[in-house]
Amino acid sequence: MLDQETLHKITGRAVNQIIVEEEFTQLLQTGKPLRLKMGFDPSRPDIHLGHVVGLRKLRQLQELGHQVILIVGDWTAQIGDPSDQSATRPMLTHEEVVSNAESYMRQFFKVVDQTRTQAVWQSEWFGKFGLADVISLTRRFTVAQFLQRDDFAKRCSAHQPIAITELLYPLLQAYDSVQIEADVEFGGTDQMFNLLVGRELQGMMGQRPQQCFLMPILVGTDGVQKMSKSLNNYIAVEDHPNDMYGKIMSLPDTLIMEYYEYLTDVPDNELVEMAKAMQVQSVNPMELKKKLAFDITSQFHGGAESQQAERYFEGVVQRKETPESVELFSAPDLHKDGPLYILETLIQSSVAKSKTEAKRLIQQGAVEVDGTKVTSDKLELHEGNLIKIGKRRYMKIVGNDNQDRSKEVK
Amino acid sequence: MLDQETLHKITGRAVNQIIVEEEFTQLLQTGKPLRLKMGFDPSRPDIHLGHVVGLRKLRQLQELGHQVILIVGDWTAQIGDPSDQSATRPMLTHEEVVSNAESYMRQFFKVVDQTRTQAVWQSEWFGKFGLADVISLTRRFTVAQFLQRDDFAKRCSAHQPIAITELLYPLLQAYDSVQIEADVEFGGTDQMFNLLVGRELQGMMGQRPQQCFLMPILVGTDGVQKMSKSLNNYIAVEDHPNDMYGKIMSLPDTLIMEYYEYLTDVPDNELVEMAKAMQVQSVNPMELKKKLAFDITSQFHGGAESQQAERYFEGVVQRKETPESVELFSAPDLHKDGPLYILETLIQSSVAKSKTEAKRLIQQGAVEVDGTKVTSDKLELHEGNLIKIGKRRYMKIVGNDNQDRSKEVK
Repeated sequence: MLDQETLHKITGRAVNQIIVEEEFTQLLQTGKPLRLKMGFDPSRPDIHLGHVVGLRKLRQLQELGHQVILIVGDWTAQIGDPSDQSATRPMLTHEEVVSNAESYMRQFFKVVDQTRTQAVWQSEWFGKFGLADVISLTRRFTVAQFLQRDDFAKRCSAHQPIAITELLYPLLQAYDSVQIEADVEFGGTDQMFNLLVGRELQGMMGQRPQQCFLMPILVGTDGVQKMSKSLNNYIAVEDHPNDMYGKIMSLPDTLIMEYYEYLTDVPDNELVEMAKAMQVQSVNPMELKKKLAFDITSQFHGGAESQQAERYFEGVVQRKETPESVELFSAPDLHKDGPLYILETLIQSSVAKSKTEAKRLIQQGAVEVDGTKVTSDKLELHEGNLIKIGKRRYMKIVGNDNQDRSKEVK
Repeated sequence: MLDQETLHKITGRAVNQIIVEEEFTQLLQTGKPLRLKMGFDPSRPDIHLGHVVGLRKLRQLQELGHQVILIVGDWTAQIGDPSDQSATRPMLTHEEVVSNAESYMRQFFKVVDQTRTQAVWQSEWFGKFGLADVISLTRRFTVAQFLQRDDFAKRCSAHQPIAITELLYPLLQAYDSVQIEADVEFGGTDQMFNLLVGRELQGMMGQRPQQCFLMPILVGTDGVQKMSKSLNNYIAVEDHPNDMYGKIMSLPDTLIMEYYEYLTDVPDNELVEMAKAMQVQSVNPMELKKKLAFDITSQFHGGAESQQAERYFEGVVQRKETPESVELFSAPDLHKDGPLYILETLIQSSVAKSKTEAKRLIQQGAVEVDGTKVTSDKLELHEGNLIKIGKRRYMKIVGNDNQDRSKEVK
């Protein structure tokens, strides 16, 4: 039997809805290890704090002895889930899927316990899925049932095209549950329909229907919209500690309590105190936010890095000092092959991933050299120049004698 | 170059619509053998005159040197075409498909030239059709495009369920056209949508889009609805000559000219004369109908059988005489195992295929013994009894010494 506190931590905090909660609680109480299904879309390998809310839930359940089954959606990725977007995506190559899966798992296991995780690929079953299987799956559901799904309904009434393929997406995802005999599936509230199809299909195919664990949607740094990479309001788990800390500090105060609840282990009673203190203005929200930023940054980068990020924030952002830590960029050909331009420096130093991105940074006025905003791609750089990119990143041009092209110094 | 008369026979008579007629005519004129696609649904192996309209068109084109590709729809049959019905059907076993295909072809080649026909099974390509193939097919069309199809639209607005599988039907049929590189596909007007999807898919996949040959719908013996087995208003190509002849004679006069046009080679100018003669009542429609019945019955049973059917009709139906031809039924156990009942006689003599059908015949008052309507399943029969079933079928009970359980006598 689980004590009430543990049970509350699992089902009462950082959860939007559990379908069916009584069943799920009963399953938990049996103590039998549950198979927790978590799907991953290899066309979107980047994990941000919005995803972490769910991953923390997996971790909590792992600590009670349950097993995570991570499904690499190499087949559904070919279709693209229309739940949160309105166009089918181009197919990924196998190499892209493999590379993205590696990248995803590196981030995934920052939160989830790798020893209690089994990763499986949809190819295991969909690679040999024939037309007869497709027919036996598609005959169980009607077009009308699927078109009632929120996003489909919206696109229907807006006369936007829905490819027939898109109706397959929820079916394939549902079939994953059957294949791995999932006990519980996790997803955002926008995944409710897909999770319920899985539950229904399992029942149709003689399995115990899975419980559906709907995670709350985390609002992004803009304080308005769902955190998402495409809206650029996200905090990535691989963000540099300074960035992670700084982005959390940039959150509107209204999100502080939600982030505490969803993303930290600070006990409920302390949260109640904090909320009260903010309400009666007996605490500066900035202090609560710094504690939050430190807590979350520590989870991904450890206490030492988090402390350094805090010092950086206090110095550079709060007291507007010159940064304590600066990357060095040593161009090997700085003295040989003519001038070093800002555009190629941004690319070669990996600040920008492409020429397009580098140009965009400059156009947006996000690049400064020695305190002056850069306006030309062709600006020449020289040894000793201090480049500032965005709000928190600094890079110094050094001579050819530095072996490392980029390293962190105090 | 085809002469105008031949061209008219192909494109101007017994045709509802050709998409695109100019293109089709051009193709014909090149003289190059065309690949004529004809699909067959093995869940409905019975050919009636409604189908013959199209088969005659195939035959005409074969006589110009073109090639028929007969597709055994062993995969689409598993789904069921919703074009003309509103429910998915139970899947057929492989044995049922094989047996139905044999039965179908036996009938098919009564009209179509077997030497210029190639029969192919969908299994050849769908047997190895994987999920990737399904995805690449379904992503090319939208749900809305398909729901615009007449029958889908009707069912949608009537809130009748459409299984997702049913959307696959037109796609698979279309893919058949790609696989066999069809130049022309044939179908009833209710197949227009499916044929056009085939045309479109071929274009998408880099082939010359097929021409779609839409055949007119033949009205059945009730004079009102499309000829169909389920409406029991059909004339089967394997009907006994007496039945075929008699059923044609039972047609309302308004259908005479249509049947002549769609189902005989009587030249157009003669048809014009006939139509005129009927209009001014200078001919008894009965005479035209007898000529029609004789013509069609001859096509399937030869002139001699057709003549005999005509004599039978004139005697039994027109002059109400005792029939000239009577089947004999010899029950081996007639004298040994107690009484012979009417119900089991109908089943053992193959008049009825099941107990249910036999009971129904009796309940409908369709069975007479020696001129008296049978009202009880338990009526005892004796040697010499003359049983009349329906309007045209007679059977006589004979003793055990007759070797053949059923044979035709003069």
